[in-house]
Amino acid sequence: MNKYLAELIGTFWLVLGGCGSAVLAAAFPELGIGFVGVALAFGLTVLTGAYALGHISGGHFNPAVSIGLWVGGRFNTKDLIPYIIAQIIGAVLAALVLYFVVSGQAGFAGTGGFASNGFGELSPGKYSLGSALIIEVVLTAMFLMIIMGATDQRAPVGFAPLAIGLALTLIHLISIPVTNTSVNPARSTGVAFFAETAALSQLWLFWVAPIIGAVLGALIYKFIAKESQ
Amino acid sequence: MNKYLAELIGTFWLVLGGCGSAVLAAAFPELGIGFVGVALAFGLTVLTGAYALGHISGGHFNPAVSIGLWVGGRFNTKDLIPYIIAQIIGAVLAALVLYFVVSGQAGFAGTGGFASNGFGELSPGKYSLGSALIIEVVLTAMFLMIIMGATDQRAPVGFAPLAIGLALTLIHLISIPVTNTSVNPARSTGVAFFAETAALSQLWLFWVAPIIGAVLGALIYKFIAKESQ
Amino acid sequence: MNKYLAELIGTFWLVLGGCGSAVLAAAFPELGIGFVGVALAFGLTVLTGAYALGHISGGHFNPAVSIGLWVGGRFNTKDLIPYIIAQIIGAVLAALVLYFVVSGQAGFAGTGGFASNGFGELSPGKYSLGSALIIEVVLTAMFLMIIMGATDQRAPVGFAPLAIGLALTLIHLISIPVTNTSVNPARSTGVAFFAETAALSQLWLFWVAPIIGAVLGALIYKFIAKESQ
Amino acid sequence: MNKYLAELIGTFWLVLGGCGSAVLAAAFPELGIGFVGVALAFGLTVLTGAYALGHISGGHFNPAVSIGLWVGGRFNTKDLIPYIIAQIIGAVLAALVLYFVVSGQAGFAGTGGFASNGFGELSPGKYSLGSALIIEVVLTAMFLMIIMGATDQRAPVGFAPLAIGLALTLIHLISIPVTNTSVNPARSTGVAFFAETAALSQLWLFWVAPIIGAVLGALIYKFIAKESQ
Repeated sequence: MNKYLAELIGTFWLVLGGCGSAVLAAAFPELGIGFVGVALAFGLTVLTGAYALGHISGGHFNPAVSIGLWVGGRFNTKDLIPYIIAQIIGAVLAALVLYFVVSGQAGFAGTGGFASNGFGELSPGKYSLGSALIIEVVLTAMFLMIIMGATDQRAPVGFAPLAIGLALTLIHLISIPVTNTSVNPARSTGVAFFAETAALSQLWLFWVAPIIGAVLGALIYKFIAKESQ
Repeated sequence: MNKYLAELIGTFWLVLGGCGSAVLAAAFPELGIGFVGVALAFGLTVLTGAYALGHISGGHFNPAVSIGLWVGGRFNTKDLIPYIIAQIIGAVLAALVLYFVVSGQAGFAGTGGFASNGFGELSPGKYSLGSALIIEVVLTAMFLMIIMGATDQRAPVGFAPLAIGLALTLIHLISIPVTNTSVNPARSTGVAFFAETAALSQLWLFWVAPIIGAVLGALIYKFIAKESQ
Repeated sequence: MNKYLAELIGTFWLVLGGCGSAVLAAAFPELGIGFVGVALAFGLTVLTGAYALGHISGGHFNPAVSIGLWVGGRFNTKDLIPYIIAQIIGAVLAALVLYFVVSGQAGFAGTGGFASNGFGELSPGKYSLGSALIIEVVLTAMFLMIIMGATDQRAPVGFAPLAIGLALTLIHLISIPVTNTSVNPARSTGVAFFAETAALSQLWLFWVAPIIGAVLGALIYKFIAKESQ
Repeated sequence: MNKYLAELIGTFWLVLGGCGSAVLAAAFPELGIGFVGVALAFGLTVLTGAYALGHISGGHFNPAVSIGLWVGGRFNTKDLIPYIIAQIIGAVLAALVLYFVVSGQAGFAGTGGFASNGFGELSPGKYSLGSALIIEVVLTAMFLMIIMGATDQRAPVGFAPLAIGLALTLIHLISIPVTNTSVNPARSTGVAFFAETAALSQLWLFWVAPIIGAVLGALIYKFIAKESQ
């Protein structure tokens, strides 16, 4: 049970920190943190969450990661569904807390996109469904390779949360303009419920693409790593 | 005695670095560091202070952290009050040094907000008391969970100052627009005395909310961690 | 074979992450990541790639690095050519993926410079061939010294990917205005094929200068390190 | 002799990276790295230089650091003068390389301030001599405490270059507006020769203040650390 709570809290932190910084601070006049700050924030949620809770739950905080690690032979079957449920609950709770905070701003006029993910009209830079699909698949695949590689027994001990967290920062530095960056179906789901846009109607892509990418990435790493042993 | 000195110096560094970067460099024309730079500065004060002084005092630099760790069973009762006093003295001294530096600028016309914390009219983004309360409680709770988790015996050795420092950076990336970010009553107290605004009249919230959050965070971590042993 | 795949994937990641962030996110209106974000992205590709794949291939991801390490006695002759071929393939594949993503943007009107390297008219800040030559030689030399030093048996264990990745970030913070920063012939080659500018006609410099620099850096480190044993 | 070469190269790197990023990239139109990027660059020169060369020379790269460590009992007398000479030579060489690069820019019209340090009219934010003195003394004192603390036998092994490098980043985040940040007499000296301003006439302060600060910081750390043993 404690593992599930750790996943709930870690995913709560990921959405509160990543989407929270985007909604509250990215476009603040003159001094706002921009995409660099949001990218840093997303990465630091995972870096800090994994150092704090990794020894309890493994620190997935992302259904695509749990599925990828399961396919890669690093995660057992019986925990898969409970992990994903805990992650979604954590994400929704974070979006709820964020909603309460945001609605307390003077002159609050609605949530807007609320840091949700999208393509086409809902892409920050108006990128197509095809662009969104490619980037989400490829980046989640790389994310899983980094996760499996950095936690490989042959990798330096203790650095995995650093490498994995900063990988998420890097992923956001690349792809916020394309899809607002998901690579995490729970993160996409949590805020989609609160967006005033049609984010929910595009949510399927941010389940399908990250999961395909995660499975591909896990299989590729498994193939390379096995061969080198 | 040396422990108290280390806490005094560490909190001095936190306020000088965090509030100093905010006052001196955040809004510098064209080249200013913005909220990203201030968030980085706050986090690096703790990262560097904890690597440098952690082996002497544990590296709290924050009354809410000391109280949270005490509730969490990681800090003894007899040091609690001396630590808090040392932290407040360090914070006030840093604000004093910062005041001397700032007042030497050509055309100096007053301290303004002096990086103090606030809500309502004193919130950078005009967020309500309710928003301020929620964000300060939740973020301090997460801060304590990260502190307790990253210093757990099962966590990777040596990385705690990195994780904890960068957690403070993350916390600032999220919440500077809401309250100017406290999560640290000493930091709020140090600069409130020098602000030209009504910051002192709102100081109570930046003692109450971080302490409530710290206690909650410590108890939650204790609960999760115990169950997993 | 697995080593070559790891080099291919790592260089793919370097170009997708570094050049991708430059093309997609650097100049996004208001919120763009600028040169700081691009510098961070390049560095994090190497940091994450080296923690994930370093135990398989050594994590070069750069022909100049492979050549420098070979001159420095840290890399065997038989792998040199396969590594360089794998790196070039990875770089071209990344540019291809990036092209597909970019071409899906509404109103796509061409690739422009596509994050290619250049001097004179093709230098971001209009720096001469001489400036380009100096900066690329010197920075690649420093890069090799850091790589050889951070992986020296006497250096702290496990930190090399961190130091080497952040060295690449630093190199970009200095020199994007001069040449758009190469220090990596594969990175330059991958995107030059897709640029609409005359980048291909200047590609020679981004093979010659990094390789000269890498050889110099490796020899200098070897000289200093030998003497100190 | 190798130690002196390592100090020369490390200080060359500090000035080339820190001052180079400031001169070349800080104010680049639209995409420039600003003070945040320069602060990051300075810190990363020390982080990377110390991981690469620390096992050879200790990684001082700064006369104030060498003097402080000597006062603190961590550095022997016979190396003090050679280290300082090597550091100055490295700094001047870096400024020379930077000058060659800068002078190759189309429309080059002079070096301007060339990232030199100053107060009064030569302070970026027009801060007085008093402000400059206070900030340079206090920040160098904190720098030495962090250096001595992070290299203390009781501190986590291997993290010192990370903590010390990021301390230099933090120091720049605070104080670039005041003095353009020195805390390092060699860095100030190297570029002062190339500035078109009266930087040389103010150079004395950037020897006096960092050395006073370094001595104070070393003594304070020694006092705290001794008592805690």
